[in-house]
Amino acid sequence: MTITQDVTTQVARIRQYVADLHAELPRNGLVAWTAGNVSARVPDADLLVIKPSGVGYDELSAASMVVTDLDGKLVDGDFKPSSDTAAHAYVYRHLPHVGGVVHTHSTYATAWAARAEPVPCVLTAMADEFGGEIPIGPFALIGDDSIGRGIVDTLAGHRSPAVLMRNHGVFTIGRTARDAVKAAVMCEDVARTVHIARQLGAPVPIEGQHIDALYARYQNVYGQTQPAA
Amino acid sequence: MTITQDVTTQVARIRQYVADLHAELPRNGLVAWTAGNVSARVPDADLLVIKPSGVGYDELSAASMVVTDLDGKLVDGDFKPSSDTAAHAYVYRHLPHVGGVVHTHSTYATAWAARAEPVPCVLTAMADEFGGEIPIGPFALIGDDSIGRGIVDTLAGHRSPAVLMRNHGVFTIGRTARDAVKAAVMCEDVARTVHIARQLGAPVPIEGQHIDALYARYQNVYGQTQPAA
Amino acid sequence: MTITQDVTTQVARIRQYVADLHAELPRNGLVAWTAGNVSARVPDADLLVIKPSGVGYDELSAASMVVTDLDGKLVDGDFKPSSDTAAHAYVYRHLPHVGGVVHTHSTYATAWAARAEPVPCVLTAMADEFGGEIPIGPFALIGDDSIGRGIVDTLAGHRSPAVLMRNHGVFTIGRTARDAVKAAVMCEDVARTVHIARQLGAPVPIEGQHIDALYARYQNVYGQTQPAA
Amino acid sequence: MTITQDVTTQVARIRQYVADLHAELPRNGLVAWTAGNVSARVPDADLLVIKPSGVGYDELSAASMVVTDLDGKLVDGDFKPSSDTAAHAYVYRHLPHVGGVVHTHSTYATAWAARAEPVPCVLTAMADEFGGEIPIGPFALIGDDSIGRGIVDTLAGHRSPAVLMRNHGVFTIGRTARDAVKAAVMCEDVARTVHIARQLGAPVPIEGQHIDALYARYQNVYGQTQPAA
Repeated sequence: MTITQDVTTQVARIRQYVADLHAELPRNGLVAWTAGNVSARVPDADLLVIKPSGVGYDELSAASMVVTDLDGKLVDGDFKPSSDTAAHAYVYRHLPHVGGVVHTHSTYATAWAARAEPVPCVLTAMADEFGGEIPIGPFALIGDDSIGRGIVDTLAGHRSPAVLMRNHGVFTIGRTARDAVKAAVMCEDVARTVHIARQLGAPVPIEGQHIDALYARYQNVYGQTQPAA
Repeated sequence: MTITQDVTTQVARIRQYVADLHAELPRNGLVAWTAGNVSARVPDADLLVIKPSGVGYDELSAASMVVTDLDGKLVDGDFKPSSDTAAHAYVYRHLPHVGGVVHTHSTYATAWAARAEPVPCVLTAMADEFGGEIPIGPFALIGDDSIGRGIVDTLAGHRSPAVLMRNHGVFTIGRTARDAVKAAVMCEDVARTVHIARQLGAPVPIEGQHIDALYARYQNVYGQTQPAA
Repeated sequence: MTITQDVTTQVARIRQYVADLHAELPRNGLVAWTAGNVSARVPDADLLVIKPSGVGYDELSAASMVVTDLDGKLVDGDFKPSSDTAAHAYVYRHLPHVGGVVHTHSTYATAWAARAEPVPCVLTAMADEFGGEIPIGPFALIGDDSIGRGIVDTLAGHRSPAVLMRNHGVFTIGRTARDAVKAAVMCEDVARTVHIARQLGAPVPIEGQHIDALYARYQNVYGQTQPAA
Repeated sequence: MTITQDVTTQVARIRQYVADLHAELPRNGLVAWTAGNVSARVPDADLLVIKPSGVGYDELSAASMVVTDLDGKLVDGDFKPSSDTAAHAYVYRHLPHVGGVVHTHSTYATAWAARAEPVPCVLTAMADEFGGEIPIGPFALIGDDSIGRGIVDTLAGHRSPAVLMRNHGVFTIGRTARDAVKAAVMCEDVARTVHIARQLGAPVPIEGQHIDALYARYQNVYGQTQPAA
């Protein structure tokens, strides 16, 4: 497969966009060394743009990003794609509304994943962004579709844009890659706060109807997408 | 309502002041992504200046701040005001001595809020700034006056300029917005230290008379408001 | 009392030195807002240089430092001295070998202080710098010599250059103010590591003879004060 | 011993390389004050390049690095070598495949070391990098070959490039000094995540065959050493 003429400009723009978004991972304390990656779907093409494998965040640029098809096969780039590319590609193949995917081993979220315990929804900020608990996906080895399938199957039963893969780490999805990065930041933030709350006793639950109300309001009213009242 | 000629200069100055103060939130580790806001009352006018909703801290400027009346209705600005504006406005309507309000979901303070447990006064720095425990306010949904009323009613019974809203986060007040920011920084600092102390046993209480003495001294002697002795 | 001609140059140099050392407090994560201070003795004069009260670390300069006598009385400066000046001054009056004093409310050290529990010596780095446990001083109110006396009396029975004042925070001493800053940094570092070790079980003690050997070696061999072997 | 003509250029290059790598220690939060060091072997010469003792990370440069022989004896440099040089030298003498050694007292790893408890392998990232648990080495005093021997003997029984010396801290090895720095960063990262997981219950173990598969894949496929598929 080759990149057709009409997506070349798009790909160039998305390379820059994805390279820039990677800076949010160290900036928000989500990654150690090179262990975390962002991808974005190329609209109107069966392509994605993702981080090269094992390269440091300071060295990333539009030029070093890697373009693959939605089976994770290299289409354009000077480097090998992230070893997590197959999982990202599986998500894009099966969830057409997803425009961006993020993977991290952020500390507190991964600690819940190591115990295979979902993060309970005991914060209004968590109801806003996740609409309930952050669920646990299965243990899955790298190398085939196991991780991608685990992500998609687990998210199917939840409103959460984040899933904690057992013994592994976090995958988040979003309409855009920026939304997926935001979900990754908020996932670590609430995983940390709920962990710390739990250390000294049981957090007070939030009633299901209140979670529903908070989620509905946040998805529709928050931010600048609606015109000012 | 329109801004009268004689408050125009004031509003311009306060827009800059509030934009600048927002930088203290990420700098002091109080916020993730866009979740935290500062407001200031416009003296001699029923107006407040507050953060726009869902905008990142790096993108804030005097121009992007939003001016509302004390019912939270937009008066001037290119963006929608923070979704917490109603709570800020309620505080200004009911507490005339308050010149600034801050809201965060800072980690340790919010963890106490998730357990609905006040932070006990076991540090001299806490006696200085809070004059006793940091109290818990009720669970309240966003969308009407519930949060504002919860803040004002809870603070009425305490010397603390900070209240931990259940399952939600922190609101602080101050004579100035800078004082409210300081209270938010100190609230997280003492919430963290007392949490860590409690992890390995019971902190030693401070006697009520000593808390009173420390609070009285700090409010009157500390800092540069008094001339040098 | 006035500054005599022959110490004027010294005072100017020490103002800069003390202002610069204050940058190490936020840089090493030891302070929130303005709560922490460094002082240095002026050699051959009954004077000390200390931080002004309630001023932020970014605003400090040689010019804003305050000079007091060893009773804490203002001798030179445009600002009120730190409200902890009496404690610093007491230390200089009673411990002639001390050239610098540091005070912080650093999180983990203050958590041990809140429980009135000394930090046990279970790390070789702690044996090196502190020669044993970091002891607990008494509860003492600000306003007279109680804090200073508590520091001096507690340190008398230990090799540690740091003392944890109950419910309050850390005071460290050093031959120079830089040494006292180093002790404050190491105090928080070992207080944090031992806290975290204790969260999941009992640390293994280090035998007293090994602590003695490590302390003796570190005080005499480490660093560049000895010529290269 | 003197540096022969044909290694002079190598030594100059490695001085810069080792000086630069030291910046990763504070950047990744592995060190307090001056307590941590990196060394590299000089290829084709019985020499190593290491940090000077007790010098701050900001003051390091190629010129301030110290060259010693593989008994830790000073060969070239204006400063005394790190007090840990004997341990580094022992490793190079006994493990010919090792090109770099790192030592830190990073917080979470040292907390496990204080309890003499290995970090169990419950994260896929840990299986990738360490191939199993991170083991505990013996208590050993500085001053002879005890530390070096403890490192080498402990690592002999494990795939891990990191060892936690009891009551002391971390030593890591690598084919290059950069690999050893990466192992030190990942060691602290997984020590922290597993600690936090354990605080609220037991992490789910990973089966031995899965650890083997993850380790084999990561050592052979990850990063850019293989040409892009």
